[in-house]
Amino acid sequence: MSKAGEHIFEVSSSCPRTWARAAMLTTPHGAVPTPAFTPVGTQATVKSLTPDELSALGAKIVLGNTYHLYLRPGIPLIAELGGLHRFMGWNGSLITDSGGYQVFSLARLRQVSDEGVLFRSHIDGSEHFFTPELAIQLQEALGADIIMAFDECPPYSDDFDAVRESMERTHRWAQRCQESQQRDQALYGIVQGGMFEELRRQSATFITSLGFDGYAIGGLSLGEPKDVTKQIVEETMPLLPKDKPRYLMGVGSPEDLIEGVSRGIDLFDSALPTRIARNGGLFTRKGRCIIRNARFRDWEGPIEDGCDCYTCGNFSAAYLHHLFKCEELLAYRLATLHNLRFVLRLMEEMRQHILDGTFSAFKDSFLGSYQPCDEEVRQAQRQKWMESRNTKFDQD
Amino acid sequence: MSKAGEHIFEVSSSCPRTWARAAMLTTPHGAVPTPAFTPVGTQATVKSLTPDELSALGAKIVLGNTYHLYLRPGIPLIAELGGLHRFMGWNGSLITDSGGYQVFSLARLRQVSDEGVLFRSHIDGSEHFFTPELAIQLQEALGADIIMAFDECPPYSDDFDAVRESMERTHRWAQRCQESQQRDQALYGIVQGGMFEELRRQSATFITSLGFDGYAIGGLSLGEPKDVTKQIVEETMPLLPKDKPRYLMGVGSPEDLIEGVSRGIDLFDSALPTRIARNGGLFTRKGRCIIRNARFRDWEGPIEDGCDCYTCGNFSAAYLHHLFKCEELLAYRLATLHNLRFVLRLMEEMRQHILDGTFSAFKDSFLGSYQPCDEEVRQAQRQKWMESRNTKFDQD
Repeated sequence: MSKAGEHIFEVSSSCPRTWARAAMLTTPHGAVPTPAFTPVGTQATVKSLTPDELSALGAKIVLGNTYHLYLRPGIPLIAELGGLHRFMGWNGSLITDSGGYQVFSLARLRQVSDEGVLFRSHIDGSEHFFTPELAIQLQEALGADIIMAFDECPPYSDDFDAVRESMERTHRWAQRCQESQQRDQALYGIVQGGMFEELRRQSATFITSLGFDGYAIGGLSLGEPKDVTKQIVEETMPLLPKDKPRYLMGVGSPEDLIEGVSRGIDLFDSALPTRIARNGGLFTRKGRCIIRNARFRDWEGPIEDGCDCYTCGNFSAAYLHHLFKCEELLAYRLATLHNLRFVLRLMEEMRQHILDGTFSAFKDSFLGSYQPCDEEVRQAQRQKWMESRNTKFDQD
Repeated sequence: MSKAGEHIFEVSSSCPRTWARAAMLTTPHGAVPTPAFTPVGTQATVKSLTPDELSALGAKIVLGNTYHLYLRPGIPLIAELGGLHRFMGWNGSLITDSGGYQVFSLARLRQVSDEGVLFRSHIDGSEHFFTPELAIQLQEALGADIIMAFDECPPYSDDFDAVRESMERTHRWAQRCQESQQRDQALYGIVQGGMFEELRRQSATFITSLGFDGYAIGGLSLGEPKDVTKQIVEETMPLLPKDKPRYLMGVGSPEDLIEGVSRGIDLFDSALPTRIARNGGLFTRKGRCIIRNARFRDWEGPIEDGCDCYTCGNFSAAYLHHLFKCEELLAYRLATLHNLRFVLRLMEEMRQHILDGTFSAFKDSFLGSYQPCDEEVRQAQRQKWMESRNTKFDQD
């Protein structure tokens, strides 16, 4: 039974040619027109930006990270100071993830049992134990509008039995999360099952049978080929109830957002747009450009003509190139503003095209001119990021 | 003869008990009520802030750095892109310094002759030669409202003959700067003479005899005791014409700003408020606080009650403490906003008190409750900064 308070989800329009839909998700902190992208505020801040800037960019919902906030500054402290909204000065809607993903990908020396996960902090090596009950309790103390079930996030694997076992544990944990919930936040369940369509179907069937306020597809965008991601989403989607939000976790490149929306996804979150911005990778309608490249040294125009972001409205690409070359703090910020605005505008455009009945043509047109990162480049970048994740810039 | 175009300086009020005065400095980019503090935008950016934020903080004038911009991105490029105002998106008044200070303190392996200075870039070791004529030509290409004569900035020394020789070279260079000026920017002369009162008097007499649009006191705040700084300013001031702006270079701590204003200074610039902000040192009416200190861990209130800055209006000290502990980019920005607002508000208050005839009482009251940094701590911090100046955070 849902314990969510003022949570409403209403679908207003569906695309006749794809599974895309436009809806309104209402939380105690306002309305979120969907499909929506959720910027990632890992440590109670979307890196380099103020809450005012996030609002001005068009963000309606932001994600905070239970694992990171548990380690620093500690969740009792945030609760004592009035909860995560107040702590970070964000008055819009807020999701917290359960910490599952970070425990399994960022922490060290973990031991998984049915009871929970033993892990060591990536910061100081201290030992901690997370259970589904604790993950809910921590998220209740943070007080976000939407909280996530605690799930096991195994790495990309072709071991069917191992993935099934992990999935079944995620299912048992999902029930325990529901049973331990005390507050009236919306609780979303997470479908797992790795890259196996059969397991994904089993997981979707089981998780939806429990009755959550929304459903996330987890365990994707972990380095698998993009066709596999699409296939898994397509297999899962028909099994999720139409009257609840569907959330694809960890997806945030422009092309993936479009593919996800066309497969019926309502919500996305990803640190990708902000992370690559800090590394000088900037989105344009033609694809990603690298602002440090010499061709931008004397580029008088903005990153992208016609872009309505603060950066493009005020600065030349040459200026941004200069800031990156000098490693100036303003570089990371201006780049982040541009990429987030690019992605948030893309969501707004997709929504409008769904409402206008022109989504399918928009999708073809966008993908026709947008050159995604080469798959090999993408894998190499991912590898580099995974290796550097303990540096201060990349702990998303 | 002044070649300045729309440059006007009008004194409107003087303090009856001190030398403090309130005036209006008008440049082609607007009016600057004085006494005024000039935030330092070393590499065409006041570190971490946008031009919009600078305006909102109350900044009317900003300083850019010829030495840094000459090395990166190169001054012809900035000129080609429309000049420094346009390059950095700043529409208020702008000063460039001549590069003298950086050539003598940051660059390596220099050779000084009457002709000019041979130095190596602190970035890549490449060799460059600056002359007074080149310093003017570069500043004309940057196009700031106010440009500075190229001076020799010897280190703090008690060798009278060496300081005199250096001063005399600065005098010859000042004349050459005047003679080579082509554009209608305001050109300010710089008084040198080290810590010797006799030389300071000689220098003030000579430099003012040349007739500049404003007069700077250079070569102070280089690590000498604060009483010496005050003494030198007091000796120099009566020799500077009353109808021109007087500019104390490199001064920016709250207590020094008050002491400078009470000695008749109109303009200041310093990277100190922004540099110490990035290191977590925040100004309050009682003195500087260190936000990383454990006592701020759960501090629910703002850094300073009643502060009108964006940071204090929106965030707890505990949040800022957390951002610094996590080395989050937003930390440097929120701290910079606070310190710059503190200093700019202090200038506004001093001006109002001069206009109201209450400056002297304000000065006593402020200094009575403001605890300056201990002299030993100050020297240690300065030393640490000098040693770390080649890191990206500290190249001011």
